[in-house]
Amino acid sequence: MKEIKIGILGFGTVGVGVVEGIQKNGALMAERTGIYPVVAKIADLDITTDRGITVPDGVLTTDAMSVIADDQIDLIAELIGGTTVARTFMLEALKQGKPVVTANKALLAEHGAELYKVAQENKTGIYYEAAVGGGIPILLAQRTGLVGNQIESIYGILNGTCNYILTRMELEGLPFDEILADAQKLGYAETPPDLDIDGIDTAHKTTILASMAYGTPVPISVVATKGIRALSGQEISNADALGYRIKLLAIIKNKGGKVELSVEPTLVPKTHMTASVNDSFNAVFVKGDLVGDTMYYGRGAGSLPTGSAVIADLMEAAADQSNKVGAPVGIHMMLQKEAVEYCAAGAIEKCCYIRIVEGDLKEAATILKKHGIDTRLIEESTSIILTQKAKESAFVAAMKELNGAIRLRLENFE
Amino acid sequence: MKEIKIGILGFGTVGVGVVEGIQKNGALMAERTGIYPVVAKIADLDITTDRGITVPDGVLTTDAMSVIADDQIDLIAELIGGTTVARTFMLEALKQGKPVVTANKALLAEHGAELYKVAQENKTGIYYEAAVGGGIPILLAQRTGLVGNQIESIYGILNGTCNYILTRMELEGLPFDEILADAQKLGYAETPPDLDIDGIDTAHKTTILASMAYGTPVPISVVATKGIRALSGQEISNADALGYRIKLLAIIKNKGGKVELSVEPTLVPKTHMTASVNDSFNAVFVKGDLVGDTMYYGRGAGSLPTGSAVIADLMEAAADQSNKVGAPVGIHMMLQKEAVEYCAAGAIEKCCYIRIVEGDLKEAATILKKHGIDTRLIEESTSIILTQKAKESAFVAAMKELNGAIRLRLENFE
Repeated sequence: MKEIKIGILGFGTVGVGVVEGIQKNGALMAERTGIYPVVAKIADLDITTDRGITVPDGVLTTDAMSVIADDQIDLIAELIGGTTVARTFMLEALKQGKPVVTANKALLAEHGAELYKVAQENKTGIYYEAAVGGGIPILLAQRTGLVGNQIESIYGILNGTCNYILTRMELEGLPFDEILADAQKLGYAETPPDLDIDGIDTAHKTTILASMAYGTPVPISVVATKGIRALSGQEISNADALGYRIKLLAIIKNKGGKVELSVEPTLVPKTHMTASVNDSFNAVFVKGDLVGDTMYYGRGAGSLPTGSAVIADLMEAAADQSNKVGAPVGIHMMLQKEAVEYCAAGAIEKCCYIRIVEGDLKEAATILKKHGIDTRLIEESTSIILTQKAKESAFVAAMKELNGAIRLRLENFE
Repeated sequence: MKEIKIGILGFGTVGVGVVEGIQKNGALMAERTGIYPVVAKIADLDITTDRGITVPDGVLTTDAMSVIADDQIDLIAELIGGTTVARTFMLEALKQGKPVVTANKALLAEHGAELYKVAQENKTGIYYEAAVGGGIPILLAQRTGLVGNQIESIYGILNGTCNYILTRMELEGLPFDEILADAQKLGYAETPPDLDIDGIDTAHKTTILASMAYGTPVPISVVATKGIRALSGQEISNADALGYRIKLLAIIKNKGGKVELSVEPTLVPKTHMTASVNDSFNAVFVKGDLVGDTMYYGRGAGSLPTGSAVIADLMEAAADQSNKVGAPVGIHMMLQKEAVEYCAAGAIEKCCYIRIVEGDLKEAATILKKHGIDTRLIEESTSIILTQKAKESAFVAAMKELNGAIRLRLENFE
């Protein structure tokens, strides 16, 4: 039986999950694939803290570069996170022609184009299933399962922390700050929580999904991003009364070669499956021109779920290497010449929920109309207007005249 | 650019979807994978009926064997269906070392062991994503995305016709027969509808999911199968009042190496995501020991959705062939030595919903108790008992004493 020797960089939550998963199921993986995964080296600055698992003597090291340079090591798993040393190590591994598996969405979102190029030049691959949707095999589904499809739209609940907070706000009626503090105490949210709460983590993942769909690196700057910090319980209960739930939704739509990307808190109908995605779960809806609507659901974070995705990539990378396939399908997709344009945030058309705080609703409707925005529902009792579709730039202009009004996106999946 | 020449056997609904999909998106697939798919030959007994698409002169033929024998043809797509000529053609293609892509669940369920063996002997592969869940890349997710996981359980809504009928019974309150007749008129249900309605199609797909999960062909006889023919509107509305919906559910559970397989109409809590899968959609829940709960959702049938899955397999088979990889991961999984045992139907433990038709509830509860079945809820107004977990054999014995009582499975996903 062929063995594959893995060097792991970063022995944090995900690194531990990978090692634990391989210890538990390595023999099963070998039986399934004909390749036995061996964790040969693990590099971390801290090699003394107890992680609750035992590794053989000599496996742990503080010297990541020596792991990358080790001739015995076939594959590198970059599980450090961040965009500084992780980038350095990843570039070095690729330059040595070693495939790299990573869960690092920030690094791919910010330096993807550079990394893919270096991978290609060195005839090797980058595998990054774990970077989006944790344990959900969403990128595999997209690049392999839907390879015959033009991707028309993607809707994603991609940040477990935000979804956990929104679910508890809805079910328990507690205020945002209180649940956030609780989530931090439970280790569900980072301190500071900005990357999650402000939608930046979701935006990173959105660029990765879009690059996979359209075959070209997507600059993070084209994603119009709003977080959930300003959400109040009032919006949650108003949405509920209208038959909606609020989700932080990544939305990617391809309109005839012009692609819209945004991340914003969005009212979704309770009858749509997105509304049923609760707690820290993630889900990605992908609509292809042949397959129609599909959805992929699972844990978006956590040691073993994310480890499961990293392990799948390791086994695929090992198979590719053993078959002398320089780079997987995903790489091809990331290096197509740009076939689509990205839409400016202001030009994205959407419906909105607007709660009027000052002045009366008729007046507000008149202001909206002046900016070309028609209304579809006006509800006096809660001071709410649901609008027809209009450009983001029109909403921005109108909001300047609607003092203190609260605006959220409304998505009816029509 | 490398071309791959495809021979299609069967120009029915799925065959047309494959050809239409390749005509529409062939160039995109080539850009993504580096391989250009070409439909070189299409064999069908009827090559005159208009299918709404145009193919070049010389592509259509009535001689399937000549397509298989054609040296120019790299890959065969078996899209005829059934277990007679489809089997002959598939065996012949495999014997010639040609990979076969198929959507034929009945053939795989009934002759899988033979076919996998011949494929292995001839160092080629069988690809069958389209055989389960239509366009949903569920087998890909299972064999590649979850390759590091022991599969603990699978819950599947795998038959679009049954789910369509159950959804309409629930939403419109119409009787089974009327909706079935309607579904047949609309082309959603076959005539006769037995394979769908009696759960046999779902059982076929259940064996394929289980063989993928546990690495060994699963005889259809181990799947305890009940269909939806006997379901009345009364059960649907009782379930609704209790907070449940009724779904025809494939259930696969691995209990310490002993695997339970069943297909039966099942009450699922409205809060569980299975309950939100409506109309002709399919969904598969897979629980892995590392990844936890995952779900895959999409169209379980139809020309283009199923075509999408066949196309994904064709591109993967083409890549494997081009990389001189004899057989995909899936094949390995199907040829492991048997590592699990299958549980007899009578030994499967489950909770049940029982509607008592004759006699009083206390008496019924006493009869159940006598057979070792405890109750969890007794509802006088509707004559319903929800039970605790007990063996199927106990339920069968008790039901003999509960004249005319109606019994359904109850699954709380605990």
